[in-house]
Amino acid sequence: MFQRLFSIPLKNVTIDDAFWTPRQNLVRDTVIPYQWQALNDEIPGAEPSHTVENFRIAAGERTAEYYGQVFQDSDLAKWLEAVGYALSIQRDEKLEAIADDVIDLLGRAQQPDGYLNTYFTVAKPGRKWTNLRDDHELYCAGHLIEAAVAYYEATGKRKVIDIMSRYADHMVKTFGPEQDQIKGYDGHPEIELALVRLYRITGNKSYLELSRFFVEERGQQPSFFDQEESLRTEHRVARRKPEYFQAHLPVREQKTAEGHAVRALYLFSGVTDLAAEYEDAGLLEVSKELWRNVTRKRMYVTGGVGSNEYWESFTIDYDLPNDRAYTETCAAISLMFWASRLLQMEADAEYADVMERVLYNGILSGISLDGKSYFYVNPLEVWPEACGIREDLRSVTPARQPWFGCACCPPNIARLIASLGQYIYSYSSRDREWFVHLYVGGQAEQTIGDRSVRLTQQTNYPWDGHIQIKVETEEAAEFTIALRVPGWCKGAQLKVNGEEIDVSSHLHKGYVKISRTWVNGDEIEMVLPMAVEKVRSHPRVRANAGKLALQRGPIVYCLEEADNGDNLPDIRIADSSQFEASFEAGLLEGVVVLKGEAKRVMLPDHGEEELYLTGPNEFADVPVTAVPYYAWANREPGEMLVWLQELRS
Amino acid sequence: MFQRLFSIPLKNVTIDDAFWTPRQNLVRDTVIPYQWQALNDEIPGAEPSHTVENFRIAAGERTAEYYGQVFQDSDLAKWLEAVGYALSIQRDEKLEAIADDVIDLLGRAQQPDGYLNTYFTVAKPGRKWTNLRDDHELYCAGHLIEAAVAYYEATGKRKVIDIMSRYADHMVKTFGPEQDQIKGYDGHPEIELALVRLYRITGNKSYLELSRFFVEERGQQPSFFDQEESLRTEHRVARRKPEYFQAHLPVREQKTAEGHAVRALYLFSGVTDLAAEYEDAGLLEVSKELWRNVTRKRMYVTGGVGSNEYWESFTIDYDLPNDRAYTETCAAISLMFWASRLLQMEADAEYADVMERVLYNGILSGISLDGKSYFYVNPLEVWPEACGIREDLRSVTPARQPWFGCACCPPNIARLIASLGQYIYSYSSRDREWFVHLYVGGQAEQTIGDRSVRLTQQTNYPWDGHIQIKVETEEAAEFTIALRVPGWCKGAQLKVNGEEIDVSSHLHKGYVKISRTWVNGDEIEMVLPMAVEKVRSHPRVRANAGKLALQRGPIVYCLEEADNGDNLPDIRIADSSQFEASFEAGLLEGVVVLKGEAKRVMLPDHGEEELYLTGPNEFADVPVTAVPYYAWANREPGEMLVWLQELRS
Repeated sequence: MFQRLFSIPLKNVTIDDAFWTPRQNLVRDTVIPYQWQALNDEIPGAEPSHTVENFRIAAGERTAEYYGQVFQDSDLAKWLEAVGYALSIQRDEKLEAIADDVIDLLGRAQQPDGYLNTYFTVAKPGRKWTNLRDDHELYCAGHLIEAAVAYYEATGKRKVIDIMSRYADHMVKTFGPEQDQIKGYDGHPEIELALVRLYRITGNKSYLELSRFFVEERGQQPSFFDQEESLRTEHRVARRKPEYFQAHLPVREQKTAEGHAVRALYLFSGVTDLAAEYEDAGLLEVSKELWRNVTRKRMYVTGGVGSNEYWESFTIDYDLPNDRAYTETCAAISLMFWASRLLQMEADAEYADVMERVLYNGILSGISLDGKSYFYVNPLEVWPEACGIREDLRSVTPARQPWFGCACCPPNIARLIASLGQYIYSYSSRDREWFVHLYVGGQAEQTIGDRSVRLTQQTNYPWDGHIQIKVETEEAAEFTIALRVPGWCKGAQLKVNGEEIDVSSHLHKGYVKISRTWVNGDEIEMVLPMAVEKVRSHPRVRANAGKLALQRGPIVYCLEEADNGDNLPDIRIADSSQFEASFEAGLLEGVVVLKGEAKRVMLPDHGEEELYLTGPNEFADVPVTAVPYYAWANREPGEMLVWLQELRS
Repeated sequence: MFQRLFSIPLKNVTIDDAFWTPRQNLVRDTVIPYQWQALNDEIPGAEPSHTVENFRIAAGERTAEYYGQVFQDSDLAKWLEAVGYALSIQRDEKLEAIADDVIDLLGRAQQPDGYLNTYFTVAKPGRKWTNLRDDHELYCAGHLIEAAVAYYEATGKRKVIDIMSRYADHMVKTFGPEQDQIKGYDGHPEIELALVRLYRITGNKSYLELSRFFVEERGQQPSFFDQEESLRTEHRVARRKPEYFQAHLPVREQKTAEGHAVRALYLFSGVTDLAAEYEDAGLLEVSKELWRNVTRKRMYVTGGVGSNEYWESFTIDYDLPNDRAYTETCAAISLMFWASRLLQMEADAEYADVMERVLYNGILSGISLDGKSYFYVNPLEVWPEACGIREDLRSVTPARQPWFGCACCPPNIARLIASLGQYIYSYSSRDREWFVHLYVGGQAEQTIGDRSVRLTQQTNYPWDGHIQIKVETEEAAEFTIALRVPGWCKGAQLKVNGEEIDVSSHLHKGYVKISRTWVNGDEIEMVLPMAVEKVRSHPRVRANAGKLALQRGPIVYCLEEADNGDNLPDIRIADSSQFEASFEAGLLEGVVVLKGEAKRVMLPDHGEEELYLTGPNEFADVPVTAVPYYAWANREPGEMLVWLQELRS
């Protein structure tokens, strides 16, 4: 069934990379154990979780009250999914034993009819499936399914797939167009993409069909959410506009990304999966039109999306304020999910460019370098003193937090980093094309015809644009290697076995394609020059009028108070100013910093205390140091700024 | 008792001025009748008021429920105060008859013990004086007292003074340090300044002493608000921090303006009055230190104050965002009250400069040109599309409203405009100095020694800086005329009877002082050149980094979409660009507009749809037209911008 996709992500990828291996190790050695402690309420000072306990109560092994969000189950699911990916990198008996215990617990918490949700089992047994709009039942189910798939793919152990199939079978019975079925869909999309994943593992087409049912029903009139609300006597949650749930229009009629950003992008990911499975060109065009809206009008330079704290939502085109940027970590992650799915449909570097942008910036900023604290909100400009007093900055924190009452982001980032291998390569058997989307050191294998071929990538990316790829094959194999030339890169160079290849004449939608009969030991050398670029926004992004951002390679930079003192907006960067890039091994666990000359507004000699003055500003020459945005807030708390005032010349 | 003040405002001032006379007429002919209708719920589509009806219910003449804010009485009070000022300009039998009826109604609604508040009389008779923190009882009393003073001064009719004296006597009994008295103060300052006004009319020192008691008790420990709360069983209002009420510290220890801006500035006005009456240098220094904090660190270029929508409050130094500027119209008005009081203590043009700045900009923006709609919130940058969807802009409206559920601002602006005459001149009998603070055409009289002297001012201010002042006196009189040289003015020129006077050698704290024996027919000619100034902010105002504002004379300008198209932040103004000022009689009821050359960022030819681009911006030359900020939003709704991107050269 996978053949219908244009290219399939390679899953058996080993990462051996100076940048990513330590981060994957961090997830395995620190984040997963830490989050396991968090889920078991063993971290002093962190917000309570109660997640594992809820499952024990649901299994009848404890008598206590349910505690937590209505979607608390999903925290355990995302943790288990991360464990699956971690085990696919390296099996680990101890961790696997814990995970197996969790899976046994899932089995014991599952109801005889297949239902599995601790909130409703424990706290509201009579209200199952009565408030799809607000209660996240299918959302939690989706995350449990994703966990099951990941764990099964890593370990080959079917038990969790069987548990989740029983639950999916229960859903197939419960939802649908028939009289005795619920003709509805979840307020928080996630089940859609999860059911496709379960279908791909099990081959059970009813799961795929249910996913399609959920997508096609969404936004139809009369409104399902209104109908189910009219049947409820209990109204816990303030009513939100249908846009919040992407239920304002049938999905096929949606042209702009509206409402809660994570919901929107999980939905669009599922829509893209369905377009692939059903070869549905109309649905693909819906996804692509929404993609253009998001990435060309509603995305921060960091790849962050969802600029509105209220409703964690999209707003209008070009509304991208920096200090009030909400840009939830989960929304950034969901953009990567969506990008990788579109990339499978259409090998266009536009998708991979966004994937890379959000990965190295808006996603990675969500986790501290030590893996122990997290940003839920990722602004592009922070003035710590104002965060404490301005209500419109109430969600902005100048320091990462160890855990959250709504702890969706920490396990989400863990599963993303642990599964990074799956985003690097894809293979199209139709065209015998092997795509390299991301530059990350390591190995990948693919069967091409009857040959087993292995690529080994070596690079010091993202700090350096030199990439070496070695081909290993027992017998010569004819296929195409398609290497992405990032959108930020000017003057990419390529050699095969030392022989220069003209990049531009081999470029197709951002990929340089080399078709030949590859033999063992063939070597590709690619150089992606990483100049320090001064990035400017579309003139309609009013928050960035008169400003520029520094970017080198895929990394977006920021200024921090630790390097540059306070009141960062008084710094002016000239278009002509040169920045030197240098790797500092001892700083922020090893980063390339940018150092350059800038001007800084001087306080006037006379009337220092005047608020408003006539006469031009006086400037002093000052050095400035920029650090990668993702690494901000890993030192003493202070100001941070991505978009810098330009001194026009 | 007035002698203790350094200079006393002249009250018997007639305004005859091309700019202000139509506005005073508008208040008399349109605003006061319109607001009378609003207070009587006779305006279709406007938010209900019920204010007059509440008094009728309190008087036992209607049986209905109380409706409105807990401080609804103050709307009638501010209206009556405006009527008083309007009558002091020109008696009007019909209006006076309505006002006399209102005063009779006040008398009938007054309780036998002097108490007068419709909310507690009608809705909560058992709860009088039990929640000073939240219930605005003394606040409403203060506004009624101010109304009484204004009406008495205009008409000489004592009835309303007698009513309010009975109420004040009741307060004198109720509040104080004794065992059977309430040792507290109001959550919303206003009574403090009002009692001083009543004392000045009646000579009853107990009112002055009660005002001092309220000021000295404020912020003392243990907290009165906590104590009274512990006695209440009913808790209607969410608890706010003591800063909100300026009760976080004893007033004498307050050094920064905190909390609700209107409350703060009404308090500081009362504090300044007490400093004058008690010749209390310590209290004066408190007021001056707070003044420096507000005007040098927390005030918009329009004179607006209170940058935080939440709590309508001050935040921290230099936190002055333009799109989320709250800058309530009432806060701007209260800044003018405070400025005029400090100006009486110390004839320093610093105070008059702020008074002028806020009058012509942040206050006047609160009312439409036709006098029928109002801004509660006065931002300096508006993007109408974003107002509708961003929760952090929920209080920003791109159009003025006809009335408000909380209708404090409309009657406040009416009383300010009607009483403008009282802010123009003041006289110090100690030094025989006659100060001219504001340039407004009209006449004023003052007895100097035993001579009655009249000054007649002629000017086309604020559009033109030529001012002519004629002296009329039956006999020669020796005194000083002190003319303010505004802070924005460079190169002021002055002639007396055609003879040039060197301004700089006669300048004292911003006033050029001419001491001589004035004879009938003496003529002063002053020229205040009104160049178009490019104003820049202190470098710590990060919202204005890289930006400039246009100002000519006292008028701050803005760009509107009606003149310049949309996406105003893509306009760049060079420091060298010239602006021509021209009066356009047909535009916005006659304004000087500024026309100049600017650059505008062009959409790049290639990749129009790209959000982020490298390479410098391309600019096109465009004309721009700026209009006075106060006159914005009097045409079709659209964008508005005060702080413009500077193109540095």
